[in-house]
Amino acid sequence: MKNQIKHLAVLGSTGSIGRQTLQVVCAFPQRFRVLALAAGKNTNLLLQQIDEFKPRFIYYKKEKTTAINGGCQFLSPEEMAAHPEVDTVIVAMPGSAGLGPTLAAVQAGKNVALANKESLVMAGQIILNEAKKSGAQILPVDSEHSAIWQCLEGEKTPPSRLILTASGGPFHRYSRAQLESVTTEQALKHPSWQMGGKVTIDSATMMNKGLEVIEAHWLFGMPYNKIRVLIHPQSIVHSIVEFADGGAKAQLGYPDMRLPIQYALTYPERLPNSELPRVDWSRINRLDFKEPDLGNFPCLKLAIETGRKGKTYPAVLSAADEVAVSLFLAGRIKFTAIPKLVAQVLKQHQSIAQPTLADIITADTWGREKALELAGKDNPC
Amino acid sequence: MKNQIKHLAVLGSTGSIGRQTLQVVCAFPQRFRVLALAAGKNTNLLLQQIDEFKPRFIYYKKEKTTAINGGCQFLSPEEMAAHPEVDTVIVAMPGSAGLGPTLAAVQAGKNVALANKESLVMAGQIILNEAKKSGAQILPVDSEHSAIWQCLEGEKTPPSRLILTASGGPFHRYSRAQLESVTTEQALKHPSWQMGGKVTIDSATMMNKGLEVIEAHWLFGMPYNKIRVLIHPQSIVHSIVEFADGGAKAQLGYPDMRLPIQYALTYPERLPNSELPRVDWSRINRLDFKEPDLGNFPCLKLAIETGRKGKTYPAVLSAADEVAVSLFLAGRIKFTAIPKLVAQVLKQHQSIAQPTLADIITADTWGREKALELAGKDNPC
Repeated sequence: MKNQIKHLAVLGSTGSIGRQTLQVVCAFPQRFRVLALAAGKNTNLLLQQIDEFKPRFIYYKKEKTTAINGGCQFLSPEEMAAHPEVDTVIVAMPGSAGLGPTLAAVQAGKNVALANKESLVMAGQIILNEAKKSGAQILPVDSEHSAIWQCLEGEKTPPSRLILTASGGPFHRYSRAQLESVTTEQALKHPSWQMGGKVTIDSATMMNKGLEVIEAHWLFGMPYNKIRVLIHPQSIVHSIVEFADGGAKAQLGYPDMRLPIQYALTYPERLPNSELPRVDWSRINRLDFKEPDLGNFPCLKLAIETGRKGKTYPAVLSAADEVAVSLFLAGRIKFTAIPKLVAQVLKQHQSIAQPTLADIITADTWGREKALELAGKDNPC
Repeated sequence: MKNQIKHLAVLGSTGSIGRQTLQVVCAFPQRFRVLALAAGKNTNLLLQQIDEFKPRFIYYKKEKTTAINGGCQFLSPEEMAAHPEVDTVIVAMPGSAGLGPTLAAVQAGKNVALANKESLVMAGQIILNEAKKSGAQILPVDSEHSAIWQCLEGEKTPPSRLILTASGGPFHRYSRAQLESVTTEQALKHPSWQMGGKVTIDSATMMNKGLEVIEAHWLFGMPYNKIRVLIHPQSIVHSIVEFADGGAKAQLGYPDMRLPIQYALTYPERLPNSELPRVDWSRINRLDFKEPDLGNFPCLKLAIETGRKGKTYPAVLSAADEVAVSLFLAGRIKFTAIPKLVAQVLKQHQSIAQPTLADIITADTWGREKALELAGKDNPC
């Protein structure tokens, strides 16, 4: 029998999910040992984390920073993910950077707490095939997918439908004219969740929800016509699962990523954690629901259609969206140009069926370059 | 291995739950065989049911009705409940009449689909002790308890709190003055559920929710301070379970008793049944929640306090309430006199700790007689 202490590799430790993962770890010092921390460029915070968690392995982006080690061995995220002493890998790196480590962790048969949706969007079939071979368990960390997973726990019969809830972002009541003049500051203010920049903009365009539909398709083996999206501005109902008998279950809570993180880390147990908020039901008063507006938020429809098409299209969608969001954040394109640019890139893509990992990486690179090229040539600003 | 077909005894077959149970049975002719039907005085409907389901055993109240048998053997509900060929007993008789058959079924180690809340209210400890001895499984049929059961399925850690939702009945927005002049017609019109007369009036006074709190205490082994009631007029969220990590799960659906009935009959499976309604999430729009008004609905507080006191008090509560409701339905006492009469009876009760079944039956009889006596002597109309 394995030791009760779980040995963790936290990939993306200085980002929003990484920091909250370490908060959960702190609440259960007898349960977890942080063996590896991988950061990006925020070496100041990484140094603090090294001081606090004393990992054996670290990673950071070396460009222009002073070399640090704090007595730690430098390993790549892929090496950490596959290290024999690591039990659980938390993949919390943003964007396509998560694909390599996710795949390494899955191939090594780890428990993979997956907060990076791009890896499943880009290479869902490959990751699932590898997990089947190695016995790796993929534990969703996104609040919606964690909700679905919690609702499916113990059910003997497959669900008939998944309803992903979406806050709708800051603009779900905006007219098309209002959307044309959205600023980066407005788009970065999410009404219910505190998250990184990329996912906050993706929430505002609803691309995020589209990517989550693709993620749900792979995680739960559900066909696209059995996955729906419902706007729920309060972000209390994190998602709903419907069953063959007409009944449904939902997972609820205040929007706080520490709950899905902790659930993934302690599964199948639930541990008491007084730092996590409890819903005050007498103050909820009301929960609202409405259909998403696919006209004003074309990213949602575009992502779901791209998921259905499969092949290398979803990798291109993800790549083009990363570029489009960074161009928007840099003030180079308008908010409403994001879906236009992504759609243009997808239109020009020569897809490959049943792609290998190399095909997917090539498509990703192509998607980025094409997005930059189209934005430069025919700037949709 | 047992035959796949479940052999059912439906006790209370002509009542609301009984009729809906037979509807569920009709949807799965390969799964269920109705072996026994027990009715009350509605022999016309029983005759139709005998014709359709061809049970081997029947029961009905013989007073003033023509003897019927339709080729069936006459058995008491207790005999049906304990019959060796019966797998699952649906106890859907109203009021204290359910206690004997429930106990017989539990002692015989059956699967007991329990729609009769009075048996657990009156004799929860005895029923649980007997189930432990015999290995009987108690399957909740009340929508709230079924919801909690569904949310607990597969959970490895006990819940931290149960939140029973309540429609609030037709009067949850009434002032105290308005409650004084409520008519039987008004009280019999439940806004979301179609049910029998007794439970409809109990819903209007919220005594029903109080009895459900006691029921939940026994079914799920939860202390009273961890069970709460929340008004939810739309009756879509059937109850909520909170866990140690701060997360919560809820079971949702349109108010339709066929779902909890079917879940109890097919557990642990969920079978597709196109006759059961599916929630149209785009039309839900909003779900409302508020705290119950214990001042205007004293039955709720009274029932929970009585549950906490235990002993023979809950049996007296249940007995006095049955009398009070029948007096209200007969136009003999006012709506607001129901809690007063029940409280008066409870006040005069000489309780017995760790009661035997005989003690409980004596307390039940005493409660009825005392309620009638008090209503006659000092009529609270």
